[in-house]
Amino acid sequence: MKELEERIRRDGQVLAGGILKVDSFVNHQVDAALMDKCGQELARRFAGLGATKVLTAEISGIAPALTTALHLGIPVVYARKTKPITMPDQVYLTLAPSHTKGRMVELIISPEYLAHGEKVLIIDDFLASGATILGLVRLAQAAGAQVIGIGALIEKSFEGGREALTPLGIPVESLTSIVSMDENRITFAD
Amino acid sequence: MKELEERIRRDGQVLAGGILKVDSFVNHQVDAALMDKCGQELARRFAGLGATKVLTAEISGIAPALTTALHLGIPVVYARKTKPITMPDQVYLTLAPSHTKGRMVELIISPEYLAHGEKVLIIDDFLASGATILGLVRLAQAAGAQVIGIGALIEKSFEGGREALTPLGIPVESLTSIVSMDENRITFAD
Repeated sequence: MKELEERIRRDGQVLAGGILKVDSFVNHQVDAALMDKCGQELARRFAGLGATKVLTAEISGIAPALTTALHLGIPVVYARKTKPITMPDQVYLTLAPSHTKGRMVELIISPEYLAHGEKVLIIDDFLASGATILGLVRLAQAAGAQVIGIGALIEKSFEGGREALTPLGIPVESLTSIVSMDENRITFAD
Repeated sequence: MKELEERIRRDGQVLAGGILKVDSFVNHQVDAALMDKCGQELARRFAGLGATKVLTAEISGIAPALTTALHLGIPVVYARKTKPITMPDQVYLTLAPSHTKGRMVELIISPEYLAHGEKVLIIDDFLASGATILGLVRLAQAAGAQVIGIGALIEKSFEGGREALTPLGIPVESLTSIVSMDENRITFAD
């Protein structure tokens, strides 16, 4: 998606440790109009697959997942990283490594909102190693739901996430794909 | 807002400790279409005040703040509760009590995204004691920004938040206002 790619070129910052900082339009400040366009495009790519629910992980997945859900006309569920007191005792829980936190985090979903037989579209801001997304896949599978597609705003194709997701045999779409980056240059796939 | 009120009547659950559980459409699962309508209505109520940025707190403020920002055509900034590694060392930080966590939480904003002179509209899911919103007000003031209005999806008018915000002398709008609630009955203001 050209507009997102241009924004990353202009405002993205490559930090030490292979972190791409997009805090000015995705992660801390959110460009609402751009996020809506991204959601519209992700919805277009997965239209016709019969998704009944969008699934994401708090926190930074919420914005793109919400706009995608809006354009598909379905609800979104975001996995929590700490169990709120409103959640029942019995939950679906898995562990996934957090790139930006440098430790394992919990991903928790209440069985109230993910039912057997649902068709789940997973949306996240980044597709890097794929670890968070695979955590969401495990939660969906635990609930007896079927994951029908995976979408991300920004793929870091050199971190192997797409290869990790290939065995699922479902469509994986990213709006932009970075093949290499350092402090001076971000190179996108053609 | 009638539609939100009806949804709270139908799907809201009053838990022990005065907690209103709206996890099926606001806090864990989000009804994207309803959230968009709420954002549209909040944008309508604050139109013409010249807001340059919507400000909220992660996590549950993100959805209504994003849709409000979308309809106002401005960006949204969400205060973080833990400082990510992408944030500079020097930040705006304040403490606010969390109703659902039963302890103080940090609210953190990077100076990169809240500038002197900005006109800030604060949006959150709940207006209860007003403590989180007052925390966001302090952050905006620390940045030299002007808070021009405060909006919430659900006000619990019996928890005193509106009175706590009155000294600010700015418009406070809630889409629904609950005057009393127990396990069997939720009563809204007329």
